[in-house]
Amino acid sequence: MNCAVAILSVGDELVLGQIEDTNASWLSRALQSIGRTPGERRTVGDDRARLADALRTLASTHAAVIVTGGLGPTLDDLTREALLDVVSPGAVLVEDEAGVEHLRGWFEKRGRPMPASNLRQAMRPPNARLLANPHGTAPGIAARATFDAHVCEIFCLPGPPNEMKPMFDNLVAPVLRDDANVVATAALHSIGLGESTLAERLGELMERGREPSVGTTASDGIVSIRVRATGPRNAAQAALEATIAECLSRTGNIVYGRDGEPLAAVVGRMLAERNLTLSTAESCTGGMLGSFITDVAGSSAWYMGGAVTYANERKIADLGVPAATIETHGAVSHETAIAMARGALARFNTHLAIATTGVAGPGGGSEAKPVGTVYVAVAARDGDVFSRRFHFPGDRTTVRRRTAHLALACTRFALLGEGARALLWSEGEAVRVERA
Amino acid sequence: MNCAVAILSVGDELVLGQIEDTNASWLSRALQSIGRTPGERRTVGDDRARLADALRTLASTHAAVIVTGGLGPTLDDLTREALLDVVSPGAVLVEDEAGVEHLRGWFEKRGRPMPASNLRQAMRPPNARLLANPHGTAPGIAARATFDAHVCEIFCLPGPPNEMKPMFDNLVAPVLRDDANVVATAALHSIGLGESTLAERLGELMERGREPSVGTTASDGIVSIRVRATGPRNAAQAALEATIAECLSRTGNIVYGRDGEPLAAVVGRMLAERNLTLSTAESCTGGMLGSFITDVAGSSAWYMGGAVTYANERKIADLGVPAATIETHGAVSHETAIAMARGALARFNTHLAIATTGVAGPGGGSEAKPVGTVYVAVAARDGDVFSRRFHFPGDRTTVRRRTAHLALACTRFALLGEGARALLWSEGEAVRVERA
Repeated sequence: MNCAVAILSVGDELVLGQIEDTNASWLSRALQSIGRTPGERRTVGDDRARLADALRTLASTHAAVIVTGGLGPTLDDLTREALLDVVSPGAVLVEDEAGVEHLRGWFEKRGRPMPASNLRQAMRPPNARLLANPHGTAPGIAARATFDAHVCEIFCLPGPPNEMKPMFDNLVAPVLRDDANVVATAALHSIGLGESTLAERLGELMERGREPSVGTTASDGIVSIRVRATGPRNAAQAALEATIAECLSRTGNIVYGRDGEPLAAVVGRMLAERNLTLSTAESCTGGMLGSFITDVAGSSAWYMGGAVTYANERKIADLGVPAATIETHGAVSHETAIAMARGALARFNTHLAIATTGVAGPGGGSEAKPVGTVYVAVAARDGDVFSRRFHFPGDRTTVRRRTAHLALACTRFALLGEGARALLWSEGEAVRVERA
Repeated sequence: MNCAVAILSVGDELVLGQIEDTNASWLSRALQSIGRTPGERRTVGDDRARLADALRTLASTHAAVIVTGGLGPTLDDLTREALLDVVSPGAVLVEDEAGVEHLRGWFEKRGRPMPASNLRQAMRPPNARLLANPHGTAPGIAARATFDAHVCEIFCLPGPPNEMKPMFDNLVAPVLRDDANVVATAALHSIGLGESTLAERLGELMERGREPSVGTTASDGIVSIRVRATGPRNAAQAALEATIAECLSRTGNIVYGRDGEPLAAVVGRMLAERNLTLSTAESCTGGMLGSFITDVAGSSAWYMGGAVTYANERKIADLGVPAATIETHGAVSHETAIAMARGALARFNTHLAIATTGVAGPGGGSEAKPVGTVYVAVAARDGDVFSRRFHFPGDRTTVRRRTAHLALACTRFALLGEGARALLWSEGEAVRVERA
């Protein structure tokens, strides 16, 4: 038997893709935080038979099922009926007195007459109980389904997140909480190695069935290592930390942050700790790099600003890039990237400057510099200026996002020092180093 | 039997709620646009048996199943194995020659050695075929499952949306398309009126049960009108266009674009048509405005660049804002916004310049200028400079996004002329006009 908790999301608007089902992912995280494992997730439209079928299957294979949606007052809200079909097949819904009270009170308090249809919301299967909803008309419903020796607790919650979340926290979590069986999770974010190279370094840590489990995901140049440990709360947390330490020892300084920490915030902390300042000179990213940086609250302490030099004449006038450099080597080149970074360093009088120039596409590519060719340069006052060539696959948005992420990664490696920098900046034509 | 198309999303990171499954809702909409009904949706973790079980159930009850995710190179990517268990139980995966070629070419083109683990991505069940992926290493897989008289087409697509979407559009949609029962949808995007004011203008078009249906949604200051018509392709399309024309006649030039058209692209088209150029001077948006502008392919024709002047000293040095202006009125003021826009106009020698300055939060607010206070100024060469004060609710990210959107909206209204501008720029203290 599966001690996991299934999530069943109900509603045509979900099946049709009209709204994102953020409830399901919220519930997944909430369940783990109270020591329960999220099991299968299903999404079903407003159809009584299909809904009952999905609920029955999930209930017979999980210790609990959380249903969201389908508790409204209209005829297409069928969660009550489907629940009845599963927990009391053949019976009829009964009107709950306290539920009727709640509804009358709700409308009275708002000085509005109660539409008769709302009374549907006070109906429940005979052996079920209503869950109070202080934030809306729809009460939740809790019921138990029995299949031979297996018992499943079913909780039906309203669809609106501002009603669903407090009902889960106050009335469902206390029932389901299990400190003996927590799932502790963490994500480590890295940049600089491909997903498969990183996986090779993690080696047998990623084997199926290992506890804690280790997996990887990649997005816009960022490869994340996801670790997950199960067990009694303290033991799970300790096992999680031990595996994280093992992951870190194998990946080293490729990992820049943990859980929700953005790369720009990590770079900002490093700068702030050393009292260093940063400026930007952006061509292909067109401001995105500055935007990522200023997403970080308090970034004004270390980020002075920058130049968005989309036109070549702006690179020349605002950053002092020699016109001859652009003419000879092109705007997308080591030489221009280096001159832009040097120019930002001088003009904005910062300790570090980052420059980006590239062909984001869809137009502008050539055989020598196809779409996706990008140069990132980082200049350090009284130090070196490095330029690194990249080639990013994907569309304009992807190329730009990757460029902004890699520009921040280059800055981080520059701040980590020479040895670390070599990790990201491979040898050969793709990298050039000069004195700033 | 069900002629609907099921969607199976694969990955522990989804089940655990670590990422939102935006693929599923995108596929739901994409299926409707090609005349297919989305059926059940399931989300399953990286577990071969559970995955195979879910795929088998969905395949036996739907005409087609789209699977996303689990096609990566690592040991926790098990979609290939689960597909095998469903379409060729007992068989083993075979290596696809063209798939190996694709992988070798992919790494060769990038000058990187191919990790051995990537060869897993060229494996497929014996009776399946690979779907080419020009945007990543993971090919998709198409296979057919047969259950007595029922046949189900299964398409396994990679998880990253930038790889999944083109693969669906190019290789899956042509196979599944059915013009007899299309759901035609369109969205009109507006900025400048609140959602309820807009809804009042749309009146009975928004009544429940109307066909085509009309609804509104709001996000980051943009209010979108969503229209949806069902039927045979041509009839649905005609009904859709008629309703859209009716919506437009009631909303006028508040609507700036349709469907995916970003506001920056609309502004860009207006500028390009008149041979006008634009520059930006950003404080609180920190580059986001430039980033939105340069998201538009071809924006280099009309966008010259800008200054990200996060520090006050940069506003003074780069944009010529008088230090006294900042001292007297503050960096967040009509006076500073106007000086920034004027400075950008002069420095970048463009026809129009936009400036943003505000308190994005969480810190920096005061009684007179609480978090969310933002000034946007637009200056026109040989014309006026307008500054408009806004107060946006929400967190730092929301305030910044709204600021960038409203800055573009202000530019659009400036380009539309005096009468239009009045719509957005109400009278009173919140607006100031001077000669540029």
